Amino acid sequence: MIKHDHSRWGAGDQLGAGNLLTQERRLAALRAIRGGQLYDLSHEISPGAPFMAPNQTPFLMSIWASWRDSIGRRRRMGATNDAGSNVERAEMTMHVGTHIDALGHFSIGDHLYNGLPAAEVVTDWGLERLGIEHTPPMISRGVLLDVSGFDGGPYLSPGRVVTPSDLARAADAAGVAVEPGDIVLIHTGWGRFFGVDNKRYLEGEAGIDVPGARWLTEREVVAIGCDNMAVEVLPNPDRGMALPVHQHVLAEAGVHLIENLVLDELARDRVATFCFILLATKFKGATGCPVRPVALV
Amino acid sequence: MIKHDHSRWGAGDQLGAGNLLTQERRLAALRAIRGGQLYDLSHEISPGAPFMAPNQTPFLMSIWASWRDSIGRRRRMGATNDAGSNVERAEMTMHVGTHIDALGHFSIGDHLYNGLPAAEVVTDWGLERLGIEHTPPMISRGVLLDVSGFDGGPYLSPGRVVTPSDLARAADAAGVAVEPGDIVLIHTGWGRFFGVDNKRYLEGEAGIDVPGARWLTEREVVAIGCDNMAVEVLPNPDRGMALPVHQHVLAEAGVHLIENLVLDELARDRVATFCFILLATKFKGATGCPVRPVALV
Amino acid sequence: MIKHDHSRWGAGDQLGAGNLLTQERRLAALRAIRGGQLYDLSHEISPGAPFMAPNQTPFLMSIWASWRDSIGRRRRMGATNDAGSNVERAEMTMHVGTHIDALGHFSIGDHLYNGLPAAEVVTDWGLERLGIEHTPPMISRGVLLDVSGFDGGPYLSPGRVVTPSDLARAADAAGVAVEPGDIVLIHTGWGRFFGVDNKRYLEGEAGIDVPGARWLTEREVVAIGCDNMAVEVLPNPDRGMALPVHQHVLAEAGVHLIENLVLDELARDRVATFCFILLATKFKGATGCPVRPVALV
Amino acid sequence: MIKHDHSRWGAGDQLGAGNLLTQERRLAALRAIRGGQLYDLSHEISPGAPFMAPNQTPFLMSIWASWRDSIGRRRRMGATNDAGSNVERAEMTMHVGTHIDALGHFSIGDHLYNGLPAAEVVTDWGLERLGIEHTPPMISRGVLLDVSGFDGGPYLSPGRVVTPSDLARAADAAGVAVEPGDIVLIHTGWGRFFGVDNKRYLEGEAGIDVPGARWLTEREVVAIGCDNMAVEVLPNPDRGMALPVHQHVLAEAGVHLIENLVLDELARDRVATFCFILLATKFKGATGCPVRPVALV
Repeated sequence: MIKHDHSRWGAGDQLGAGNLLTQERRLAALRAIRGGQLYDLSHEISPGAPFMAPNQTPFLMSIWASWRDSIGRRRRMGATNDAGSNVERAEMTMHVGTHIDALGHFSIGDHLYNGLPAAEVVTDWGLERLGIEHTPPMISRGVLLDVSGFDGGPYLSPGRVVTPSDLARAADAAGVAVEPGDIVLIHTGWGRFFGVDNKRYLEGEAGIDVPGARWLTEREVVAIGCDNMAVEVLPNPDRGMALPVHQHVLAEAGVHLIENLVLDELARDRVATFCFILLATKFKGATGCPVRPVALV
Repeated sequence: MIKHDHSRWGAGDQLGAGNLLTQERRLAALRAIRGGQLYDLSHEISPGAPFMAPNQTPFLMSIWASWRDSIGRRRRMGATNDAGSNVERAEMTMHVGTHIDALGHFSIGDHLYNGLPAAEVVTDWGLERLGIEHTPPMISRGVLLDVSGFDGGPYLSPGRVVTPSDLARAADAAGVAVEPGDIVLIHTGWGRFFGVDNKRYLEGEAGIDVPGARWLTEREVVAIGCDNMAVEVLPNPDRGMALPVHQHVLAEAGVHLIENLVLDELARDRVATFCFILLATKFKGATGCPVRPVALV
Repeated sequence: MIKHDHSRWGAGDQLGAGNLLTQERRLAALRAIRGGQLYDLSHEISPGAPFMAPNQTPFLMSIWASWRDSIGRRRRMGATNDAGSNVERAEMTMHVGTHIDALGHFSIGDHLYNGLPAAEVVTDWGLERLGIEHTPPMISRGVLLDVSGFDGGPYLSPGRVVTPSDLARAADAAGVAVEPGDIVLIHTGWGRFFGVDNKRYLEGEAGIDVPGARWLTEREVVAIGCDNMAVEVLPNPDRGMALPVHQHVLAEAGVHLIENLVLDELARDRVATFCFILLATKFKGATGCPVRPVALV
Repeated sequence: MIKHDHSRWGAGDQLGAGNLLTQERRLAALRAIRGGQLYDLSHEISPGAPFMAPNQTPFLMSIWASWRDSIGRRRRMGATNDAGSNVERAEMTMHVGTHIDALGHFSIGDHLYNGLPAAEVVTDWGLERLGIEHTPPMISRGVLLDVSGFDGGPYLSPGRVVTPSDLARAADAAGVAVEPGDIVLIHTGWGRFFGVDNKRYLEGEAGIDVPGARWLTEREVVAIGCDNMAVEVLPNPDRGMALPVHQHVLAEAGVHLIENLVLDELARDRVATFCFILLATKFKGATGCPVRPVALV
């Protein structure tokens, strides 16, 4: 089993590598923007979004109040301006579509990040600590590592491990060195099947295993993102290991994971570095949340 | 009744004033950032968030899958690394907490923004057009108009109309002119009661009426935000009018509304202009979504 | 299109054939019970229950409050008896598992049963009239019509119409005549695939078409039940007709439909008539509800 | 703390006093019906139903698919008969309105009924054992114990303990002796505030304490029902005890609790005994379910 080490940021820390999101790095990332071009890195979220049962669950949304009835209700209360409201109700997992994982999303046995005991932190109604509301706004340098073509096609196949040398090779090809405070996004090409062929999208994926994850966390990245469900290779080559990258990245290293990203345009334009912005909605105690990250160049 | 005028951006337009979010304005707003200090403009979202029944509805969240059981399930499938997942399920309105309204959120009678017929656009499962997925990432100049002290106290009282002259006075005091592409945030001081005294927070609010809204939409703002539930004054002084500002701003002018903002720190620091960033999650067909806007200076 | 005729029970009627559930018939059905043997006619309801998208939706249930946390909360409030509560939250359609349809479940164009205008009755939050809360407790004579073996096997295949002569033949074989106030249950043998092979269960079904439905409604039955999703044949032989039996039975005749029944034991024991009991939970304004009907002999 | 004793019905038992629901008792109860008059003992369930936060939660229901859109969808698929479906979606606790508690609803510390370990039985998604699907159809003799007038008014006040001698007095007044297999319903008069004055309904209630509960379980009743939220007195006179009656009745005695009953008409008509019918919907693993019990005389 992976060992848990306590945070270098102190016993009370809930930010993990978020501590690296300094104002200096933020300003540097903003200052590096040249023309202001924006890339939207997220999918649309709908009932057609893929999900991995049984822990992930269907996204359902329907109109709760609609214009006809709300106009009628307001008329009966004396209004004459026929203002119709349209408001929906959603039933959802926070891990739907393009989303970020909170540090408390995964445990190593009975412990979470920073040695926090899951039995105390995880309550019926969410996380007492390490919830997504503690994730700082992310405005820092983004780095794209494009490994999609490493097997000769437009994407890597399920079960293909993205190794440390793959990551190094992609960085070299892009002429970039991963640095502390970076958000690293890995392009496998698999995102093309999201919402288009969900069965295929869910049957497995190329991604990093623990060595690749360590290669990144050792470089002190703040978050690791990918254009697949789990960032990590599925199924794991070691069938006795279930989601070990989640354990290392979230619970050991205090680094965030960002999943189901849209990276094709960044890759197409060979954008190596950019100002990455992700603003996680502060759902108190949630283990993650859907987001709309963007890249600015 | 308020008349509806067709969009100046063409029959097919779904962006409204979002068309003003040009790359130039984005770059200008980014370039105006000096030190990179960040203000978080959002509340935490929890079951304790206030909501206006019956159109708005309770926020509920509970753990769906937790570490104990997910470890057990994975052991039974042969895993030995005791990876525990914590994943919740949320039931919610998209108008919970700090959120943005999509252009299709309100109708004037049977028509939505750009003359679109509500009977065709509003379906059982959301908006066929004008949903929040069409709202562009907002990175533009933000302007704070602080009217909170205009009655001598720290906040304006429910039913107090914020008039065009109030807005002009606040702009003058800040030494700023509202310009096309701006996001204008109005500080009434009412946000102090959000989640602290929900009964009071919901019993009414100071805010703009249609003249104040027109003063802003005529200046071609992209969005209007406020530290209250509805941006607009509640109850409306004309008891025959229900939410007329929503009708004008969303359905006539194609301008977004941002509600339940946290503006106290911006006001305390007398920040007049800033780079405003709001990245609305692309829930397909939704009439709005919770967000985490920030201000950079 | 099927024509709508107004109720013979008056303009305000919401009961339809439920008016036939007289105290006399109830008493007669109860008096006909001999040994008191009970047959449970319902499936268990779980996330594994089949549903017909998009109108029917997934059944989701998870623990909301559990013993560990509720004991902890109560200890903190001073309790010493360690009472642990287990309470779940369910998200569901009312048409899950073995269930009954309310009269307002289906329209013929813009009209519901008894000529009621759907535009007035169907609101954002349910039915203003004809909801399941108006369905009387059903305690009346049940009749089993077993057609399952009519094609030589243990069940009829999808698309197989159960005709009036099939119904007459089954009644003759059982030595029973359908009478006013009866609840008629049709055994096709298809129930064996419920929850066992949902793909197959949903791909179509044998059942009555409009002639078979009329054969029953003319005999003044109170409800028609079946061991399949929709009582009626799917797909309809006339591909221009979608669910015409629902229209005739619910909206024209004011007769209830009971779906996903478990009838194998009744059929095995060749039970022709019995005391049928179904107690629809009074969800106000709902278009149906899951139930646990039983037969007593 | 209350001690837990193992079931007299064996180590594998999940029925508890449900074992007393013999065919003989069922037949006797049915045979005792005279005229066939029916009393509906349940409230309507709606968003206006009271609930005890935080373990109980709001009932929400809204139309998921409606006639206009479903007709449109079917037209686009080639149908010409304009069949409009109305189907809702509900979000709910199983403990809403008139409902029955499953034996697994409450623990004594870490144990449930029959010594079953809560840590094994209570999963993320419900009860592995002791769920409501194991509750047999209840058709047995019902006994009404009317204590509502014992303090001189039409109802007993919150905090008023209904003692064993109160129960004996009510039984004597009715000329009935509680016997094995009975379902005993206690009329306190408090049901008049359900949905009418929820604040009052929830602020406390008269009801039995552990001695009254033991008086009933010693007489081998199958279930205890009441016209209040919890059957038991709230708040408990011993402020160190939270819901001890739930612990004794469910987890020790294996007897069901039925809550939020409507008993006024039975009491008004001085109905002492009756045939009680309650058919709990088989939600697999649920800790209870809403029901529509009836009484027949």
